[in-house]
Amino acid sequence: MVANRQVIIAEVPQGPLQADHFALRELAVPEAGPGQVLCRTLALTIGAGQRAGLQGSASYAGAPASGVVMGGTGVARVEVSNTDSLKAGDLVVGPTGWQDYSVHEGHQLRKVPPGSDPALHLGLLGTNGLTAYFGLLEVGRPRAGETVVVSAAAGSVGHFAGQIAKVNGCRVVGVAGTDEKCHTLVNSLGFDAAVNHRDPNFRALFRAATEERINVYFDNTGGPVLESALFRMAPHGRIVCCGVVSQYDTASPAAGPRGVPGLLVNNRVRMEGFLVFDYQDRYEEARAQLSEWVDRGELTPRVTEFQGLESAPGAFVDLLAGATIGTTIVRVGQ
Amino acid sequence: MVANRQVIIAEVPQGPLQADHFALRELAVPEAGPGQVLCRTLALTIGAGQRAGLQGSASYAGAPASGVVMGGTGVARVEVSNTDSLKAGDLVVGPTGWQDYSVHEGHQLRKVPPGSDPALHLGLLGTNGLTAYFGLLEVGRPRAGETVVVSAAAGSVGHFAGQIAKVNGCRVVGVAGTDEKCHTLVNSLGFDAAVNHRDPNFRALFRAATEERINVYFDNTGGPVLESALFRMAPHGRIVCCGVVSQYDTASPAAGPRGVPGLLVNNRVRMEGFLVFDYQDRYEEARAQLSEWVDRGELTPRVTEFQGLESAPGAFVDLLAGATIGTTIVRVGQ
Repeated sequence: MVANRQVIIAEVPQGPLQADHFALRELAVPEAGPGQVLCRTLALTIGAGQRAGLQGSASYAGAPASGVVMGGTGVARVEVSNTDSLKAGDLVVGPTGWQDYSVHEGHQLRKVPPGSDPALHLGLLGTNGLTAYFGLLEVGRPRAGETVVVSAAAGSVGHFAGQIAKVNGCRVVGVAGTDEKCHTLVNSLGFDAAVNHRDPNFRALFRAATEERINVYFDNTGGPVLESALFRMAPHGRIVCCGVVSQYDTASPAAGPRGVPGLLVNNRVRMEGFLVFDYQDRYEEARAQLSEWVDRGELTPRVTEFQGLESAPGAFVDLLAGATIGTTIVRVGQ
Repeated sequence: MVANRQVIIAEVPQGPLQADHFALRELAVPEAGPGQVLCRTLALTIGAGQRAGLQGSASYAGAPASGVVMGGTGVARVEVSNTDSLKAGDLVVGPTGWQDYSVHEGHQLRKVPPGSDPALHLGLLGTNGLTAYFGLLEVGRPRAGETVVVSAAAGSVGHFAGQIAKVNGCRVVGVAGTDEKCHTLVNSLGFDAAVNHRDPNFRALFRAATEERINVYFDNTGGPVLESALFRMAPHGRIVCCGVVSQYDTASPAAGPRGVPGLLVNNRVRMEGFLVFDYQDRYEEARAQLSEWVDRGELTPRVTEFQGLESAPGAFVDLLAGATIGTTIVRVGQ
């Protein structure tokens, strides 16, 4: 008998996330009811934002509970379909969760071209790429020649945001947590400069890299990097509040950055939060544009891969520790 | 001989402002050179934002120095004019500073109708009224039926901002620092509710007054009231960062509010600083609209008056202590 392996939340984390907050269990493969679809997970993506979903009601994702399957987006193959819109063998993206098999209503799944790489639909054309696209272009509204700074710049959203800014003629500075990541940003992904926020000289290095001030700061982290950016904003600068990775892996959010709201007033800075779901009716436009940039060689998606469902908890811990570059993918099945 | 009395900065304040940070001195009345104008100050306005100008380079107003005349906007009568655009007896608004007489280039002065009340040009039609107008309408963009919260709501900018929101069909909640002010806001100025931020039950009272969440928060204070508002913002809410009165009277700005940037993301909140000077080319439009509202009885300017130039330092201390309502005016001469 084929089993359905599941990664469940064994314990809701109160402090830093550890792999043993999760557990593996096996259940029978579920059956698709009328109008439903049974899916075989091929790959999952893990994003730092999912850590917020484990923090309870403070997050937009709602409160977590132990004993349930860890949620997440995956690419899957349809095994059994009881709906006309899908057939066995179709490739789909949906809320598979961290498990081998899952059952869904047809409308929960988005069909993608058969044979295409799951990583593409989880990174560039998934929530990560779309978040970078709408956050940077619609909230940040960069103009050619402006300086754009991206934090967590080697992350899934960040590495897209920085490259999209480059395509739009901006000078781009990345902030990341290791020298290796900074090297990748500048040498492989076309960033003009990158600064390691763990470097003891971070403030001086950051100041030097933003000599002409910051017009758009794409913030994935909050915390000290946000505070540093606030003090370097140009008049009429914009801060895109995309994520708060510095605060996810803690039980008690720290005080906000100094300079709020004083520096916002002095420099007439706009600081704006957004959720990509608000742009749902424009996803196809964004996917077409992102694909075109890749085809032209102007945008390079990066992926860090892990093998096997059982590697997902460790991959999540690695991601939060800053050990991954680009979109984090867990290959689950074939 | 007529002397020119001046209030000078005797000592740049390091902590809370005190009247003896200022001193009175007498000099000879200055002479107007070619193209210049000698003015007799009739009234001054004092605003909380001027405290920021005494904080050194942290403020947009530049660093202060001891021994110089305290800056400020006044209404004055032209005594001697060596420029064609003005004549003796004209009433003007300009950067008179805290003194009886001052000399200016003609272009620094704005002519206002002879015989009109100086308080009108320093409050409603001055920087205070214009700041409320553009901050609320252009940055906050309230829609009829929305809830607008104003902090320092009994202050010069705040009491205009709240009333402008009422004219535009909003439900308006004021936050002020005494029960007397709250009473005035509700009973004389048409606010729907007002909450005293010094009340031990402030959080519960504020929550009750913002049951339907906050669509626009017009922030004159920063600090704890801003933090409270952040936790009550509605999705797609807007925070107008107008001033930071909670931080002016201190040497070391406190940490920023918790919830920045996390709550901005979750609720897609826009938080935006502005300076009224950026709207200079639309001042006349705003003045016409503000006057019309007053004529229709929909907007009531309030003034707290002090008599005599020598009362200015005490008036400033009173203002920062929250003892004034509306625009603070010092009557200087006749």
